[in-house]
Amino acid sequence: MKIAIDAMGGDNAPEAVVRGSIQARDEYNLSIILSGKEIEIKRILEKNTSNFNNIELMDAADIITNDDKPVLAIRRKKDSSMVKALYAVKEGRADALVSAGSTGALLSGGTLIIGRISGIERPAIGSLIPNMSGGFCLLIDSGANVDSKPEFLYDFAIMGDIYLKRAMNIISPKIALANIGTEKSKGDKLTLDTYKLLENSNLPLNFIGNIEARDILKGNADIVICDGFTGNMILKTMEGTVHELMKGLKEEIMSSMRSKVGGALIKPALKNFKSKFDYSEHGGAPLLGVKAPVIKAHGSSDAKAIKNAIRQAKTCYESNVNELIEESLTRR
Amino acid sequence: MKIAIDAMGGDNAPEAVVRGSIQARDEYNLSIILSGKEIEIKRILEKNTSNFNNIELMDAADIITNDDKPVLAIRRKKDSSMVKALYAVKEGRADALVSAGSTGALLSGGTLIIGRISGIERPAIGSLIPNMSGGFCLLIDSGANVDSKPEFLYDFAIMGDIYLKRAMNIISPKIALANIGTEKSKGDKLTLDTYKLLENSNLPLNFIGNIEARDILKGNADIVICDGFTGNMILKTMEGTVHELMKGLKEEIMSSMRSKVGGALIKPALKNFKSKFDYSEHGGAPLLGVKAPVIKAHGSSDAKAIKNAIRQAKTCYESNVNELIEESLTRR
Repeated sequence: MKIAIDAMGGDNAPEAVVRGSIQARDEYNLSIILSGKEIEIKRILEKNTSNFNNIELMDAADIITNDDKPVLAIRRKKDSSMVKALYAVKEGRADALVSAGSTGALLSGGTLIIGRISGIERPAIGSLIPNMSGGFCLLIDSGANVDSKPEFLYDFAIMGDIYLKRAMNIISPKIALANIGTEKSKGDKLTLDTYKLLENSNLPLNFIGNIEARDILKGNADIVICDGFTGNMILKTMEGTVHELMKGLKEEIMSSMRSKVGGALIKPALKNFKSKFDYSEHGGAPLLGVKAPVIKAHGSSDAKAIKNAIRQAKTCYESNVNELIEESLTRR
Repeated sequence: MKIAIDAMGGDNAPEAVVRGSIQARDEYNLSIILSGKEIEIKRILEKNTSNFNNIELMDAADIITNDDKPVLAIRRKKDSSMVKALYAVKEGRADALVSAGSTGALLSGGTLIIGRISGIERPAIGSLIPNMSGGFCLLIDSGANVDSKPEFLYDFAIMGDIYLKRAMNIISPKIALANIGTEKSKGDKLTLDTYKLLENSNLPLNFIGNIEARDILKGNADIVICDGFTGNMILKTMEGTVHELMKGLKEEIMSSMRSKVGGALIKPALKNFKSKFDYSEHGGAPLLGVKAPVIKAHGSSDAKAIKNAIRQAKTCYESNVNELIEESLTRR
C-alpha cells in the first residue's frame, strides 16, 4: 500500500515528518509519497537515509497554515502540500493520508476532495485521550462539526466503534454519551434524542449510557460521543487545565530551596507521569467518515508521532475500517 | 438584614453550616434563620456559642437530596429545609438565601418559589473558577439551563457584569464568550448570534470577544459566558482533570523511595499550590436572575466556605445587585 504524507504540515515539518516517514517505511514495509517542497525534502532524506526505495516525491510550492480559512485554503491553495496529497488519494495514487497540518483544512479537504462515505452526512474527528490507567478514550467528534443533529452523533458512535474494534483491537468498546448527568432523563434536546438512537440501535453497540465530563479521564468509557462544539470544549479544557496545573506546580516547587531539592528528587517520577499523557504513542486523530483513511497527527508531532500516525493509517486501510462503516450504515 | 440558611444542605450539614452561620452572624453583624431539624441544630448551636441573639430557628423535618428530582422535590417536599428557607425569602421574612444543597433543586426553587426578575427568562448559575494567578473567573451559566437561546446568554453577560462590579468590586469586568476559536466567524449558531448581541449592546459591557476553553484558566477574562450544557462540560472537565492529575502524580511520587523523599520535601509547596484552588475563599456560586440574592455554596463546604457564602449574599443584597440587573434589562 501507499500512503500520501503532507510533509509540510505541523510545527516540526518538514524535518520530523520526513524522518518519521522514513522510519515508517522501514518498519511497516510500505510505500510513501511525500508532498511538499521537493528541495527541502530531498535534503532531509539524504541526511537520514541512503535507501530511496518506496519513497516518491510530489513537489508542492505552497503550504496551508493554521491562519488560513479551511474551506478557502482547500479551494485556492491548489499547489499546497496538503491539497496535493488529498488529490493523490482521491485519484487512487495513494491509499491513505497523514497530515500534521491544519485540522480544519484537513477536515474540509477530506470532505470536499476525497469525499464522504456513502450514508455519512458529517465526517468527524476522533481524538485519542490518554488516561491515568494507561488506556485511552476516543472522543468523537472532537471539533469537526458544530450544530450537530442526533443522527450525526449516532453515526459518530458507529464509526468510533468500528475504528476501535478494527484499528485498535478493542473487542467491545464501551460507548458513552457526554452529558450533564448520568441519568437517562438528563441533557439537552440533542443528547436526549441521541440517547434514544443509541439505546434502540440495531447494531451491536456497547452503549453504556451518559458520562459526565469529570469521569472521562477515569477510563470508564472507550468512546465518548458528543457534538464538535462540546468535544472542542472538553479537549481544550483538559489541555488548558493540564498546562496551567503543571506550570503552577513547577513555579511553586521552584519558589523555595527545600522544594527545589524535592523537585529534583521527583524529576524521574514526573517524567514518567508526563509520559502517560504522551499522545505520540497512540498516533493521531482519525478523520472518520471520508472515503479513505485520513489521520491527523498532532501539530507538535515529532518523528515518532508521525511514524505512529502512518502505522495507524496503514492499520485502518488493511482492516477495512471504511468498508465496514459503510456496511454498518445500511443496518443502522 | 436577615439571611435564610438551608442548614441541612451539603455534605457537612448541619454541623459545618451551623458553625459557619454563627461565624457570619458575629463577623458581619446580621440576623440568620436556620432552616432544618430543630433538635439537631440546637445541639450544634449550644456546643458552639452561648449567644443566641439574631439566630432564629425554623423547624423542617425533611431534606432534599442530590438524588431527588429537582422540580418534583421542590413541589412535594414542602417541609424540607430548602423549601422552607425559600418561602421565608418569598414571604419577606428573609432577604437572601444560602444553601449548600442540591444545585438543581435550588435553581428550581429559586425560579418557582422566589420568582424571576422581571425581564429575565432564565436564571443562571455563575461559578467562580479560581486561576493560577490568584484571581478567578465567573463562568455563567455553569449548568442551570440546557437548550439556551442567544438572548439568554446575553442576559447572563449583563447579570455577571453587574454581579462582579457590585459584589466583587471589579471595575470593568472583561467578558468573553466560550467558543471553539477566537475569530468572530467561529462557532455554532448559538455563539455566532450571541456574539452579535454582545458586540452591539447598548450597555457598557467590556466584551473582549471569544475565548477558547484552553485559555479560561489563564485569567484573560473575568466572565466567561456560555450555555449551561457547555458550562457544565467546562467545569466538570476541569474538576476531573485536576482530580486525576493530582491522583496520578501522587501515585507516581509514592512509587519509589527517591521520589517519596522528594514528595515529602515539596509537601508545603503542594499545599500552597492546592490552596490556590480553594473555592472556600471566594464563597459560593450566585444564582442570578431571581428576585432575591441566592448563593449556592459548594456541596463540600466547611464552616469557612459557608461563612463566605453568607458574606456574599449580604454583599449582593446591600449593593442592590438585583435592582441594578432589572434596571439594566430595560436598556439592553
